Amino acid sequence: MPGYTLAELGACLGGSPVGDAGHRYSGVASLEHATPEQISFVAGERHLAAAQCSRAGALLVSSHLSPRIGQPHLVVANPHAAFARAVGLFHPEPEVTPGIHPTADIAVSAQVAADAWIGPNVQIGENARIGARSRIGAGCSIGAHGLIGDDCLLHPNVTLYANCRLGHRVILHSGSVIGSDGFGLAWDDDHWLKVPHIGGVVIEDDVEIGANTTVDRGALDDTLIERGAKLDNLIQVAHNVRIGAHTAIAACAAIAGSTRIGAHCQIGGAAMIIGHLEIADRAIVSAGTFVGKSIREAGTYTSVQPLMPHADWKRNAAQLRHLDELHRRIKELEKKLSELERKSP
Amino acid sequence: MPGYTLAELGACLGGSPVGDAGHRYSGVASLEHATPEQISFVAGERHLAAAQCSRAGALLVSSHLSPRIGQPHLVVANPHAAFARAVGLFHPEPEVTPGIHPTADIAVSAQVAADAWIGPNVQIGENARIGARSRIGAGCSIGAHGLIGDDCLLHPNVTLYANCRLGHRVILHSGSVIGSDGFGLAWDDDHWLKVPHIGGVVIEDDVEIGANTTVDRGALDDTLIERGAKLDNLIQVAHNVRIGAHTAIAACAAIAGSTRIGAHCQIGGAAMIIGHLEIADRAIVSAGTFVGKSIREAGTYTSVQPLMPHADWKRNAAQLRHLDELHRRIKELEKKLSELERKSP
Amino acid sequence: MPGYTLAELGACLGGSPVGDAGHRYSGVASLEHATPEQISFVAGERHLAAAQCSRAGALLVSSHLSPRIGQPHLVVANPHAAFARAVGLFHPEPEVTPGIHPTADIAVSAQVAADAWIGPNVQIGENARIGARSRIGAGCSIGAHGLIGDDCLLHPNVTLYANCRLGHRVILHSGSVIGSDGFGLAWDDDHWLKVPHIGGVVIEDDVEIGANTTVDRGALDDTLIERGAKLDNLIQVAHNVRIGAHTAIAACAAIAGSTRIGAHCQIGGAAMIIGHLEIADRAIVSAGTFVGKSIREAGTYTSVQPLMPHADWKRNAAQLRHLDELHRRIKELEKKLSELERKSP
Repeated sequence: MPGYTLAELGACLGGSPVGDAGHRYSGVASLEHATPEQISFVAGERHLAAAQCSRAGALLVSSHLSPRIGQPHLVVANPHAAFARAVGLFHPEPEVTPGIHPTADIAVSAQVAADAWIGPNVQIGENARIGARSRIGAGCSIGAHGLIGDDCLLHPNVTLYANCRLGHRVILHSGSVIGSDGFGLAWDDDHWLKVPHIGGVVIEDDVEIGANTTVDRGALDDTLIERGAKLDNLIQVAHNVRIGAHTAIAACAAIAGSTRIGAHCQIGGAAMIIGHLEIADRAIVSAGTFVGKSIREAGTYTSVQPLMPHADWKRNAAQLRHLDELHRRIKELEKKLSELERKSP
Repeated sequence: MPGYTLAELGACLGGSPVGDAGHRYSGVASLEHATPEQISFVAGERHLAAAQCSRAGALLVSSHLSPRIGQPHLVVANPHAAFARAVGLFHPEPEVTPGIHPTADIAVSAQVAADAWIGPNVQIGENARIGARSRIGAGCSIGAHGLIGDDCLLHPNVTLYANCRLGHRVILHSGSVIGSDGFGLAWDDDHWLKVPHIGGVVIEDDVEIGANTTVDRGALDDTLIERGAKLDNLIQVAHNVRIGAHTAIAACAAIAGSTRIGAHCQIGGAAMIIGHLEIADRAIVSAGTFVGKSIREAGTYTSVQPLMPHADWKRNAAQLRHLDELHRRIKELEKKLSELERKSP
Repeated sequence: MPGYTLAELGACLGGSPVGDAGHRYSGVASLEHATPEQISFVAGERHLAAAQCSRAGALLVSSHLSPRIGQPHLVVANPHAAFARAVGLFHPEPEVTPGIHPTADIAVSAQVAADAWIGPNVQIGENARIGARSRIGAGCSIGAHGLIGDDCLLHPNVTLYANCRLGHRVILHSGSVIGSDGFGLAWDDDHWLKVPHIGGVVIEDDVEIGANTTVDRGALDDTLIERGAKLDNLIQVAHNVRIGAHTAIAACAAIAGSTRIGAHCQIGGAAMIIGHLEIADRAIVSAGTFVGKSIREAGTYTSVQPLMPHADWKRNAAQLRHLDELHRRIKELEKKLSELERKSP
């Protein structure tokens, strides 16, 4: 019988049912849209009002909010993580029949695991290796000597240049490009000379890389993304960058060459980090922030302008060109005033 | 006989010829490069000088500028729109012979309209449907259950993940990725847990999406782009974003998760809008602007630094770190000065 | 025998050996990772300490640093450029056997040079021409009337729309899209009307374009990238932009429509340049900088906020909304103070 009871979910997710543990639910949904046959979750105090109005049949909640929930619910340690697992239970990934599509072009020297799946129009170069149960979507191109571990998922139209190595359970979204040449140029009299890039890219286990994100190969050494790091869409990772384990980077961030980002960092969307910096473990960079110098210790860092109606901005921005002068005028005022005060009776 | 006379153009575009209405023109061009056999247009007062120097044989102009134009011209209500139509008249899209390229890989359960065109190396998944006269360029991948309406145009190498739905007359440019997983992560003890994304993407009629733009699928509910919205290149639309009808977004903008942009908005290039905001109808966000809070009413909003020579910038930027201190010093000066004034005879 | 002696390198690269000129080296590496069998280079004074600790067997150095180098070395005019060439000597590009992959779909009217290489699943449109020794990677799509010169390299999954023309020795990285329609819209009563784009894209000799970069076609005239310009990844080049010869643009920069960038410019990563501007030859735009007006002369230009700990930023940013008011208060203080000074004995 399809679906899950609270008792079954408690067993799968590790939690204690409160209320009717035997009722069977058919799916998951947001608090706003859930029906009585669906399960939702309460991420924290701020969702309590929405939870109280929700038509959801049951909820996943933490123990300290449990007394304030009227519906049947499952008390779990981490409602967000438990809900992520619940979604997977109700929506298992479709089964894929292993095999190689007849239109795939695979070099004779390449090795593809018997239980891997290679989609239509995939191209796999010399000496590449595709691990067990990995799936390579339509139109992907895997360069020579590419290594893809077990249980990887490459969505359609991903490109790996030669000599890029993925660990296990790596997910690459469509349009991502791994291993393109870094932007290395030497000025040579009257033109730019391209610096050949002989480093590769190493992407460790459990990394996920978003759609149309680019990761350049290293000049001499490898570009490295450590285990469990998560990258969103349209991110630029330049040559020889190192991204630490479990660091999460939101969309449209740009990381220039040779910068090292620590572990457990969170880099906001559209942040820009210049080259040759060190970002400490557990640093948090706000969205839209420009990082022009190294960050030596954990903490949150920001550098954005506040939004203003255009007319206000125009008036204020005019002063930005004169801040130094304003500062001098204040100093001058302070000096003159203290002279006056001295003279004053 | 090829080309159009002013009389014919007037009939097609809705306008009144002034000057020789029977002369036949062979094409369109910019004011700068037009020859006497070509037609150009005057967008407004600011192009009048260029118009007066132009060698263009005829012009499209609005009635209030007509008296100041020496060349033969067509008086139209909206010269820019009329010129857009004129370009289409002189440069009709090449005819496409319907059919399915032999290298396309189409699931047996997929339905392709008889008059659609499916290019080389296209992959179409289970139960997908391609509407009448739609054209799917080389190397596109359409996931399972994808719906593509009538008269759509997918340029080469577009990727649609499973369960994405396009209305009619939608244009997707090359490299765009629709339906990739949103950046949804739950921290689970010592690693990020991926939140499965079971929402889809809905793109309504007459939407156009630029090259290498990414639109993530929703976590539980759908990501939505309403009718007539226009998105430029390299834009990130995160999970569960909603973009209102006829909103135009310029290149490299980034819109974070669950933000709702109203109808008839204009978002400038490289603007960054953080998540969970509401942007009112008809709001205009300047290029490069960081939107860190909701915009509650129509109007233009900005948050950029003015450009300076680097040395000036350095001097001024140093004060940006001390604005709060400058403010305190000004308050202190005001206090002391008013005391002095009180004491002064 | 593989590898090169200092004497041989001196002959190839133009330099004078210092120390054992006959020892044979097997490769190149960074100062940090080089072994005694490998060669590295000293870019300048700032790498001297690393050079002195390096285990590299030999170094490429400029004459003024030669006296301070203990290892065998080659004195060269430009160590960075010489090293770039040395990398190419030790790592020649793999030979490619010319030919057309059987899965490529090539229009009958297209012309492909006999010594070109066309990869799997490539699509080439009507009347396109591919020059001598050019290589077109897997999954590329070349639109009708596309011209590709000699010795070009298109990595996998590049898209060229119709009527785009490349010179010789052009390199396009994966996912780049050349010739997509510009973002040209005319407001027509109650909807956006698409302006058909009949211009093309011209990319001159020796240009390199990074992964997932987009270059839009011109509206009426062509978009132009002049010889020797170098573009990094994820850059947006809008319709009718002109980029001058030997200009280098770092990743994630955005250049809006009709802007003209001069020759020998350097545009930093994530810089944003609005439309219809002129940027003078040899201008340098810092990373993350917003260019809202033309740059009339060479020099370095900047407009970014300095990074701050979030709490400091919050305090300082609050004052950004009141700069104009602060300015008025300073003026008021100056006025009152000078009155007091006048009255003061």
